[in-house]
Amino acid sequence: MNKISPLAPASYPKLSVINGVRLAAAECNIRYKNRPDVLLVSMDEGTQGAGVFTTSLTAAAPVEWCRNILKNTKARALVVNSGNANAFTGEMGMASVRRITQATATALHCKPEEVFIASTGVIGEPLADEKITNALPVLKAALKQENWEKAARSIMTTDTFMKVATAKTHINGKEVTINGFAKGSGMIAPNMATLLAFVFTDAAIPASILQQLLEEANEVSFNSMTVDGDTSTNDTLLAFATGKAGNSPVTSAEDKPIEPFKKAFAALLTDLAIQVAKDGEGAQKLITINIKGAESDKAAKTIALSIANSPLVKTAIAGEDANWGRIIMAIGKSGEKIIQNRIEITIGGVTVTKNGMRVPGFNETPVNKHMHGNHINILVELGIAHGSSTVYTCDMTHGYIDINGSYRS
Amino acid sequence: MNKISPLAPASYPKLSVINGVRLAAAECNIRYKNRPDVLLVSMDEGTQGAGVFTTSLTAAAPVEWCRNILKNTKARALVVNSGNANAFTGEMGMASVRRITQATATALHCKPEEVFIASTGVIGEPLADEKITNALPVLKAALKQENWEKAARSIMTTDTFMKVATAKTHINGKEVTINGFAKGSGMIAPNMATLLAFVFTDAAIPASILQQLLEEANEVSFNSMTVDGDTSTNDTLLAFATGKAGNSPVTSAEDKPIEPFKKAFAALLTDLAIQVAKDGEGAQKLITINIKGAESDKAAKTIALSIANSPLVKTAIAGEDANWGRIIMAIGKSGEKIIQNRIEITIGGVTVTKNGMRVPGFNETPVNKHMHGNHINILVELGIAHGSSTVYTCDMTHGYIDINGSYRS
Repeated sequence: MNKISPLAPASYPKLSVINGVRLAAAECNIRYKNRPDVLLVSMDEGTQGAGVFTTSLTAAAPVEWCRNILKNTKARALVVNSGNANAFTGEMGMASVRRITQATATALHCKPEEVFIASTGVIGEPLADEKITNALPVLKAALKQENWEKAARSIMTTDTFMKVATAKTHINGKEVTINGFAKGSGMIAPNMATLLAFVFTDAAIPASILQQLLEEANEVSFNSMTVDGDTSTNDTLLAFATGKAGNSPVTSAEDKPIEPFKKAFAALLTDLAIQVAKDGEGAQKLITINIKGAESDKAAKTIALSIANSPLVKTAIAGEDANWGRIIMAIGKSGEKIIQNRIEITIGGVTVTKNGMRVPGFNETPVNKHMHGNHINILVELGIAHGSSTVYTCDMTHGYIDINGSYRS
Repeated sequence: MNKISPLAPASYPKLSVINGVRLAAAECNIRYKNRPDVLLVSMDEGTQGAGVFTTSLTAAAPVEWCRNILKNTKARALVVNSGNANAFTGEMGMASVRRITQATATALHCKPEEVFIASTGVIGEPLADEKITNALPVLKAALKQENWEKAARSIMTTDTFMKVATAKTHINGKEVTINGFAKGSGMIAPNMATLLAFVFTDAAIPASILQQLLEEANEVSFNSMTVDGDTSTNDTLLAFATGKAGNSPVTSAEDKPIEPFKKAFAALLTDLAIQVAKDGEGAQKLITINIKGAESDKAAKTIALSIANSPLVKTAIAGEDANWGRIIMAIGKSGEKIIQNRIEITIGGVTVTKNGMRVPGFNETPVNKHMHGNHINILVELGIAHGSSTVYTCDMTHGYIDINGSYRS
């Protein structure tokens, strides 16, 4: 068992029920023993689904399945297992997916193509799908509106704390609720930030608009977060809207009445993404990297990620060393337009470089103090144009080596 | 002092003299104490120079200087210091370069634009160039044809062993000698593999042809090697040909008589590159990654580097875990064309995957045995076309974290 991240929250928010969503988790011993490792979510008729997936060209069977059924827009169930990724399992892997979705559809009286599925864990091992299908009666009997925490815990792998978030907002005066949970905590990088994350709302939003909102929010949340630059074969972010809140119809993502929902939705996803960064394998510090003045937002993000994924930057921060030369290195290797003598680096609010060199008479003491905290803030002002980006990551410590040198054993 | 890499050579080759080249090293206390940290190389009139440099957009002042003087083709001196990179030092940094090259030119009776310069060490600290210029008389007096080992040692930073290589070959029947030395050992990644490397020969080769040979050899050696994916601000690979061997003129890089030299030159650079990988910070294992059957050589190299730079692959190998699922992950995230069910992964000569999944009845025992050795061989056959690439790297261990969490302090 890995030590709980020092960045874990002191307490968890209580997730209220979402009308039309019931959840259950069970111990199926797929890999882990004595803990729930399979999740079943049942959603009422009328639920709309949206999804964003890994860009990996070795995507796992469940990812291929979800991509394919997404066009139906209808969602009635979600099945998730931890401990086995069902990735690079060939024809066998897809056969497992078909058996699980078919059995779930039979149990919940819906169509297999209304059953979403996700897996996380070791790559390349055949999935013992009968352990999941055999558990379906138990899971179905255990379905409850209140089981959010059980659900969040069942999808964890090397996570040291569960990631949940909740928000209440309104659409045209009607209160709506959004609940979400996610798991990290290695192989975490855009695109898309490597993880499983599931978001549910009782809002009535058509699938096409939900999809647009999800893609936009993903860009500033999970796609702006990295742990190790490694992209998983299984990244899956799904959003489901049951429509039970009974708000008036939403006809466009640009509708004024959808604005508060849009904001709350993006904030909730960002909250979950930051939680994943805080639980990056071996993480001791959360690092927030702000790039301003870049040629474009895209260039800003590339530079931010070049810094966020640099092993030398991440190990220096683990060592509480304000080694800003490595930030310069990471900016330089990004390939994006920069002008050396315009780069201003600010660490923890203290300007470190100006005019292509260290600030004259630079006093490192306040920066060193900042480096000893567990929230590190790096701001880079490029002075070229107005592109900006915020990216979240964590430091790289001995814990990362410990966890990843022995994950399978 | 870092522990010597377990991959260090048992003994070093003896480098014979190269007519027209004399070397000296001195203790200048730029950062390190009680060890030589400045190198002076004097080259006879008629020496031709060629160079390849970092692609970083925050390249250091000495890199800018060398790039600029390279067009003169004439080389008479090389000055190198360790402990300070003279990078991101603004106007001051370039002024330091001008003072050093001017003083060296005066001391050796040549032009400043015939003096090459390189620096390695901490980024962003002003370089105390007077420590170098003050040492020039001592350095000049110490110049000797035999000082290869001293030279190789003076440029080391976090290197745990010196990297030297030598070869004898012939051009049109005339024997020629090639000597080279290099330093790593962090911030090592193409392009170009981040380091300092200097190669000398007594062959008579015009600068333009030497440049072509250097670029070609660099592509399969230093540009095919990575430690941490971080590109330095100071990468410099220089080649010098004194012409003292008196071989008949070489008029084209495609000349038949230059073939043996070409091969020996590329082999020597590859030898140095592998030594740098073997001394990657904290390295316990040398990893050779062969990609075959890719869409193109370029695609093959992108995939090889995606595997070589993956923290998850490198930590798994450090943990002696044949976690080939992470290799699949790294192939998938590369963005290059692949077809999942054609990928064949072979580790230590044992085929692990076929037809998009683990080989049926796969026996992990021989692979695990291979993982316990210190030379790890990974072969990926993509089955698409005929592109291939070989890339060298090392594992990522606790040593990497130790060294890089405390480099400056």
